[in-house]
Amino acid sequence: MATPPRFDVVAIGNAIVDVMAPASDGDVERLGLAKGGMTLVDEPRAQELYAAMGPAREISGGSAANTLAGLAALGAQCAFIGQVADDQLGEVFAHDIRAGGIGFATAPRAAQPATARCLIFVTPDGQRTMNTFLGASQFLPADALDDALIADAAVLYLEGYLWDPAEPREAMRRAIAAARGAGRTVAFTLSDSFVIARHGDDFRALIADHAIDILFANEHELAALTGEADFHAGIAALAPHVPTLVVTRSEQGAHAVSHGQAAHVAAVPVAHVVDTTGAGDLFAAGFLFGHVRGLPLETCLQLGAICAGEIITHYGARPEADLKALTADLLSAR
Amino acid sequence: MATPPRFDVVAIGNAIVDVMAPASDGDVERLGLAKGGMTLVDEPRAQELYAAMGPAREISGGSAANTLAGLAALGAQCAFIGQVADDQLGEVFAHDIRAGGIGFATAPRAAQPATARCLIFVTPDGQRTMNTFLGASQFLPADALDDALIADAAVLYLEGYLWDPAEPREAMRRAIAAARGAGRTVAFTLSDSFVIARHGDDFRALIADHAIDILFANEHELAALTGEADFHAGIAALAPHVPTLVVTRSEQGAHAVSHGQAAHVAAVPVAHVVDTTGAGDLFAAGFLFGHVRGLPLETCLQLGAICAGEIITHYGARPEADLKALTADLLSAR
Repeated sequence: MATPPRFDVVAIGNAIVDVMAPASDGDVERLGLAKGGMTLVDEPRAQELYAAMGPAREISGGSAANTLAGLAALGAQCAFIGQVADDQLGEVFAHDIRAGGIGFATAPRAAQPATARCLIFVTPDGQRTMNTFLGASQFLPADALDDALIADAAVLYLEGYLWDPAEPREAMRRAIAAARGAGRTVAFTLSDSFVIARHGDDFRALIADHAIDILFANEHELAALTGEADFHAGIAALAPHVPTLVVTRSEQGAHAVSHGQAAHVAAVPVAHVVDTTGAGDLFAAGFLFGHVRGLPLETCLQLGAICAGEIITHYGARPEADLKALTADLLSAR
Repeated sequence: MATPPRFDVVAIGNAIVDVMAPASDGDVERLGLAKGGMTLVDEPRAQELYAAMGPAREISGGSAANTLAGLAALGAQCAFIGQVADDQLGEVFAHDIRAGGIGFATAPRAAQPATARCLIFVTPDGQRTMNTFLGASQFLPADALDDALIADAAVLYLEGYLWDPAEPREAMRRAIAAARGAGRTVAFTLSDSFVIARHGDDFRALIADHAIDILFANEHELAALTGEADFHAGIAALAPHVPTLVVTRSEQGAHAVSHGQAAHVAAVPVAHVVDTTGAGDLFAAGFLFGHVRGLPLETCLQLGAICAGEIITHYGARPEADLKALTADLLSAR
């Protein structure tokens, strides 16, 4: 019998520090931002937006890194691969991920550009409008991968955002091959419709090649990938081609189809949505935690909903409440 | 008639970014920290403590800078003088203070050490245990002062913390002379008992020389400065020697004596104290706002209590709620 893997989940993602401030809808409009979306920006535009931003706070972010933070808080063994620069924000990112109990050994990059940052304008409705300067993150080289680490994790989790820049895309292709070679599960999040607009053919090819075992999407990404405007038509079109499909719908909950079995979960009611940043990331955390513990599909969805419900009650995409305590009833009921 | 000053308050203080994380009482004990206190640490100790800290968030801080953030949020015209380094945390500090509408023109310092940071362990009771690496902040040179700016502000506000390092101490002495020369009000916060232990003679001399018009202290600092263990005995000993004395007592409210008139305010009830960092700083903000608007002593105290009550409901020492809205009833009732 093969040795069980040392890690539950290893993830490759952007290593980003979020810079977050409240903003009015008028601010978002005046600055020409796409409300609710994620826009890549270059350094001059990042500086322009930062100068227009109110007093902010800095909290580590990055989609897959947020997911690992949730997984680790639930008790999973995790490791992260991502590129920071050798600067103060890079130290902040590395500190926060390691302090969460997550392995992180990617060496900081000595050259410019700086560590990635995401300028997030949070409107009174809790919606987040993200503007990402990818900086060092887009230079993650394929040779920064540790194939042995990837082979030693039950799940390889990849973030679609990182498919956009060329170097990390090659790293992710190599990581998929390493995970596949070791018989591991590959989970992938589509991240954002703009990524699908640019790389949809790649994603469809990965799916056709059976390279993705668990696919995460929100309803907009589902529509973009399948061309089906209707939610259920999109699910019906995609589900037969991936072993497990998980689609989130914000306050309408989430659907999953796994090996022909379908399940649904309602969103966890939240008295006051403060900041939706990281809702999808934390949903994926809960779902993957259930998956690596071998729990039923519906329980995986419920775990996702609890984690997503926690993250939107406060600023930032890293959990603040005790996720183990929040999920204890659900897990002990089993 | 003289031109009215352009600024309400100009402050000189440490330019610090707070690095904040929840911690248990066990953590605080294990790390050998003085719970509830402020301890100066060198860079190796700061690194050691940071490595032992959980996932954190970064929020601009610095005692006098926090006070200005509150004053500006209330609608006062403010400017800050303090030293950051030419690094990312320095940019964060400068951004946040300027984004709050506060003038800040002190040039960043190109050399090492880095921008000051304060590692703050927040225990479940909301108490904060601060460990400050002063970094660039302690190198504020006297020639960084803008005497014309100081002369153009109704109040010069000085933070006792900054009395400890030699260079800023000289800068503050010069600032007091500039304010005095222009007939302006000098306000001073004693900051921490350790500062009084080291520099109490200086402070007593400043008071004897009538160099301080408004003195802020908490009950511990009052006891340290006067040698009177009893609170009211301390007030009685000190009040005759400063035109206005303001002493805060945490959940027991605050007392003030101004030109022989005494007033008291109860603390604003708070359902759940999350983080007491900045409570004294924001009390000073509210009080000084009332002062520069020429409001009665009791109203000044009430404004202080409202601002202190806001800051302890969330992480960080910069206001999040709309202080103008929170104080509107009090101000319109006048």
